[in-house]
Amino acid sequence: MKDFEFYNPVRIFFGKDQVSRITEQVHAGSRVILIYGGGSIFKNGVYDRVKAALKGFELTEFGGIEPNPTYETSMKAVEIIKQKKISYIIAAGGGSVIDATKFIAAAALFKNGDPWKILSESAEVTEAIPFGCVLTLPATGTEMNKNSVISRKSTTEKLAFSVPPVFPKFSILLPDAAGTLPQQQVANGIVDAFVHVTEQYLTYPVNAPIQDRFAEAIMITLIEEAPKVYAKPDDYEAMSNLMWSATMALNGIISCGVPGDWSVHSIGHELTAFHNIDHARTLAIVLPGLWKTLKEEKKEKLVQYAGRVWNIKSGTDDEKADAAIDKTEKFFQSLGLGTRLSDYGVKKDTIDKIVKRFEDRKWLSMGDRELTTPGTTRKALEIQL
Amino acid sequence: MKDFEFYNPVRIFFGKDQVSRITEQVHAGSRVILIYGGGSIFKNGVYDRVKAALKGFELTEFGGIEPNPTYETSMKAVEIIKQKKISYIIAAGGGSVIDATKFIAAAALFKNGDPWKILSESAEVTEAIPFGCVLTLPATGTEMNKNSVISRKSTTEKLAFSVPPVFPKFSILLPDAAGTLPQQQVANGIVDAFVHVTEQYLTYPVNAPIQDRFAEAIMITLIEEAPKVYAKPDDYEAMSNLMWSATMALNGIISCGVPGDWSVHSIGHELTAFHNIDHARTLAIVLPGLWKTLKEEKKEKLVQYAGRVWNIKSGTDDEKADAAIDKTEKFFQSLGLGTRLSDYGVKKDTIDKIVKRFEDRKWLSMGDRELTTPGTTRKALEIQL
Repeated sequence: MKDFEFYNPVRIFFGKDQVSRITEQVHAGSRVILIYGGGSIFKNGVYDRVKAALKGFELTEFGGIEPNPTYETSMKAVEIIKQKKISYIIAAGGGSVIDATKFIAAAALFKNGDPWKILSESAEVTEAIPFGCVLTLPATGTEMNKNSVISRKSTTEKLAFSVPPVFPKFSILLPDAAGTLPQQQVANGIVDAFVHVTEQYLTYPVNAPIQDRFAEAIMITLIEEAPKVYAKPDDYEAMSNLMWSATMALNGIISCGVPGDWSVHSIGHELTAFHNIDHARTLAIVLPGLWKTLKEEKKEKLVQYAGRVWNIKSGTDDEKADAAIDKTEKFFQSLGLGTRLSDYGVKKDTIDKIVKRFEDRKWLSMGDRELTTPGTTRKALEIQL
Repeated sequence: MKDFEFYNPVRIFFGKDQVSRITEQVHAGSRVILIYGGGSIFKNGVYDRVKAALKGFELTEFGGIEPNPTYETSMKAVEIIKQKKISYIIAAGGGSVIDATKFIAAAALFKNGDPWKILSESAEVTEAIPFGCVLTLPATGTEMNKNSVISRKSTTEKLAFSVPPVFPKFSILLPDAAGTLPQQQVANGIVDAFVHVTEQYLTYPVNAPIQDRFAEAIMITLIEEAPKVYAKPDDYEAMSNLMWSATMALNGIISCGVPGDWSVHSIGHELTAFHNIDHARTLAIVLPGLWKTLKEEKKEKLVQYAGRVWNIKSGTDDEKADAAIDKTEKFFQSLGLGTRLSDYGVKKDTIDKIVKRFEDRKWLSMGDRELTTPGTTRKALEIQL
């Protein structure tokens, strides 16, 4: 394996009875703001449980964070936080609410002009308002990392940042709340978590057997639990396993000392930016296309993946790689996710726009061994037309 | 899985070129003490590398921590720390040096009488002197947890404590330094790490597939890497994989939401206390005896372990369990560890003494489902006579 640094100070409370831990975790005397999304926390009971745990704290509320959280909405929360001198944030909801909260927490204390620079110029973030999360949707893993992705409506951009001050102080994972999710969101979460793993795994071998097997463990578990929890989101045990898989997929453990890729995400983000397609669905389109395009370069890992994750043991290496890509695409489809651009009405002109944007940004070679060029991107998307 | 809390703020630097990170991690102006063991750090070059990284800091040195670190030696370090107003500790060596450092760091700031109470009475530890570790021996996992085991010569006791203030601030893992270890210590480290995993795995199923597969990943990797690194400790890649396996075996990840046992350790500690047998060797004796004794109760997990870790797929469940226990005992033997009490000259009278001690301490039912009674302990040890 390669040299690495690992650090993750997020405290996790897992299980349906853990909401009350908020009371002990939030600093006494804090002025708290509760940030949430479209209102699902009112239906699944999380709002009442969080309110009860925050009894005695001065509490402000801010709802309406979008599924792809925007700079515009986030900045409204920043204004309220400054006005009311908020000192602690509770984010209740899914990955979008937590991602927005990370940006809000950093932006509220940002002193070098427009906080958009945190995303557009990787401006330094030295501090953030402390915050805890109550997670109701397994998917992005943001509850246990320092990453966030924010969209800007005015420029149709979607950009990411990753800085230590926005590690959550704690995250409470609630499989029971996730049990009330619509099937489509559960499916999105499964695919999102799965692709987080592949981005850290499907590259090339570096003799890192622990990391490889942990990644495979998460993928095998997702494949096993997916049909159960897709059919019945309130299967508490299956949802618990999905939820912990999604957290482990992106908390830094499986990326220790191994190469990463992340080009599926980079390309997928553009599909969301141009067509507002759900994040996970963009991954379900791009991943099979990119793997088909880079099959030769990624063959060693594809063959290992075929054998260990899909139990594909016969055939040539080429056939194994093909079969594994096919199995993966069918897995996404089995959860109701279209894997072709045509499933979403997207045509060739979007491919041109994405390629042009990468060229304009000088993103000429991304990801695993810089294999994802504008040409690779074009080919990967054209395969999935 | 069961509800759980997870928290581990230890910063890890992995790889041969990481010693220089000490400079940035130790607070400027700290008065530092370097704690080490029998002097291996002079032979493997770690002493010089650490000294270079600590250039400019006021530095005191304290060597001579024993393989089973003692209260008596630790208290000498505590005295020096108080005298010299030390504010940061660097522990360089294996698990014993780090375990001693945890006790020293807590004892130096302990205000309620004799610090032995931290071990004997679980006295509260609210603070500790901050410390970082330079790990040269993969084994105990202490570099990434809050646990420590200390022996007291005067009473032939060996006790453990586990408190958040003794999480290392950082740990630097050096596979190259471990490459100079004697074969016997490498073997001990492998078995120690392996048994840490089994203590958190070989209990009963609770539908926790991620945790199970992670545990299996570590065991499979240890079994694969063991012959390579045993034959050639300076095989850098194999040692790296062993080192990361040992850390992952006891940093809390695989115990999330699953039952634990730890009776192999509890019984093993007494063999060390009475006969000064290496810790790992006591585990190699006790584990097969205890599994044979509790085969029926642990059968479901033994069968899963047989299939997934040892690829034992044929036979009845009973035969699979037997074969898995046999494979495990032979694995320990293949690394030169005797698994019988007679291999160490230990006779039946020691069994009587251990059982009596457990009865005196009212340790009447320990571990997994409280299955380890004095009677179970006697049987487990008698099988291994």
